[in-house]
Amino acid sequence: MSDPVIRRTTREDFVASSDPALQEAADRGDVNLLSYRELYHLWERQQWSVQDIDFSQDRIDWNERISPEERFQRMYGLSSFFLGEQRVTAELAPIMRAAPSEDMRIFLSTQIADEGRHVAFFDRFYHEVGVLEADDLQERLAESENHVNPKFRELFDEMLHERVDRLAREPEDLETMVEAVTIYHMVLEGMLALTGQHFIIEYNEQQGTLPGFVEGFSNVARDEHRHVAFGSRFLREMAERDERYRTAITRTLELVAPIAEDVLRPHWYEEGMPLFGYSISEVRAFALKALERRLKAIGLVAVG
Amino acid sequence: MSDPVIRRTTREDFVASSDPALQEAADRGDVNLLSYRELYHLWERQQWSVQDIDFSQDRIDWNERISPEERFQRMYGLSSFFLGEQRVTAELAPIMRAAPSEDMRIFLSTQIADEGRHVAFFDRFYHEVGVLEADDLQERLAESENHVNPKFRELFDEMLHERVDRLAREPEDLETMVEAVTIYHMVLEGMLALTGQHFIIEYNEQQGTLPGFVEGFSNVARDEHRHVAFGSRFLREMAERDERYRTAITRTLELVAPIAEDVLRPHWYEEGMPLFGYSISEVRAFALKALERRLKAIGLVAVG
Repeated sequence: MSDPVIRRTTREDFVASSDPALQEAADRGDVNLLSYRELYHLWERQQWSVQDIDFSQDRIDWNERISPEERFQRMYGLSSFFLGEQRVTAELAPIMRAAPSEDMRIFLSTQIADEGRHVAFFDRFYHEVGVLEADDLQERLAESENHVNPKFRELFDEMLHERVDRLAREPEDLETMVEAVTIYHMVLEGMLALTGQHFIIEYNEQQGTLPGFVEGFSNVARDEHRHVAFGSRFLREMAERDERYRTAITRTLELVAPIAEDVLRPHWYEEGMPLFGYSISEVRAFALKALERRLKAIGLVAVG
Repeated sequence: MSDPVIRRTTREDFVASSDPALQEAADRGDVNLLSYRELYHLWERQQWSVQDIDFSQDRIDWNERISPEERFQRMYGLSSFFLGEQRVTAELAPIMRAAPSEDMRIFLSTQIADEGRHVAFFDRFYHEVGVLEADDLQERLAESENHVNPKFRELFDEMLHERVDRLAREPEDLETMVEAVTIYHMVLEGMLALTGQHFIIEYNEQQGTLPGFVEGFSNVARDEHRHVAFGSRFLREMAERDERYRTAITRTLELVAPIAEDVLRPHWYEEGMPLFGYSISEVRAFALKALERRLKAIGLVAVG
């Protein structure tokens, strides 16, 4: 198997974000991160429309070509993304309001719209393809809750939510903002979302299934790379500004990364079961390689 | 003078929002407001890029064709918009997080990106045209504070800010959300922003000045119509749901609308001075006509 991190770097629109995970040079600590305003301009150029995606083949694939057992397995990833996007849309609000500079705030305001668009994307996919019996967004979200790992709620509804609530009450608490961005941009988006996206997109491409979903989900991944590039720059600046923030990043990662690793593994998973054609350890290796490159860019891991 | 409210309704992209102020039928209470999801889809179709606007003629106009005295007068409106957009970007965050349904939240997440884009638009205009000596966004905002009416701060930093802070601490407080949307969508965007935009755009078109600014500012106005259409629908639903919310809308308007009327008048204004070719009373009449149509759509003003 060729290294999946390396293979993915060939998409120009992903690489344009400057996300360190997509740069081999990041292994040597040699990374040029975009400025907040450059990332904003990239957002303007990377617009996409949920309403333009054609799910007619996806509907056939889902109902006629994918077995009930495989549909059940696929629901784990789909539900985690659907609910994850819904959770982060609301949680990003206090982070944006607390941003210590206007240039950061302008970028984060675009990321909020991205998260809302991702919810709309999943909602339309579920509706057009007939994934669930529920017939509106609110019900589809409620039904999806049955499919996720209990660790998912620990990550989103405790780890992230508690910090965001604190930030909502005390927007000047920059150390909590550093913790929240570490969880949100480095762990949820960087380790989990981009890893899941990579394997799910690749599997569908190999199987020739769900072309509308693949088109939209690739756009979602492109957005995530831009977000993680923001997070890398923000955390690098904070780590340089104060030793306290540096410690906060490390402390938060040590606390949260193990829970995130649990979420990569479905609760019904049994040892040896292949997931989208890969083993759990290959999936985990992908997530950790991406994290390592980003931490080198932030200046938290020695360049080896 | 033909009625400016009527004249403006000819722009198809503005009318597409379903903002009641743009519909003559709203005088008879006969209005079909778009759903939250339809407003979201309209946002996807009404994207625009700050980086694509050409300000080269604006630079010549501002520095060579517009007199120092007129530049000073124009700074009142420009500064109010620049600072207003910056204030609301952050303030919308807790409102979005507190939204009682996911469909509302998806729309509000797109509005946040719009507000960020508006800040980026003013920042780029100021920079490219050389409006101020300041050389970054943060400094330009600080310098702009000298140009606004003291009543501006009462409106944004007290009336709006206090309610948003309460909502940040208690997101389940729907009555405060109703008050905040009344101030934000009905007064700041509906009465103030769209009125200022109308007269400023028309004046520049008559004078043949600042074509890049007019292009971008028209996009800003198109965005505002979509936002106000959201606010009208939200407040109508809340007014129908509970008499308490109905009272909250009326109470808030009685408190805040007079301060907004003061902000329409520059602090250096003297009676009889024309503003962009119109009298203050014509400007006020425009703002009140738009408010009246929206209140009829919400069901708060008897249809006469």
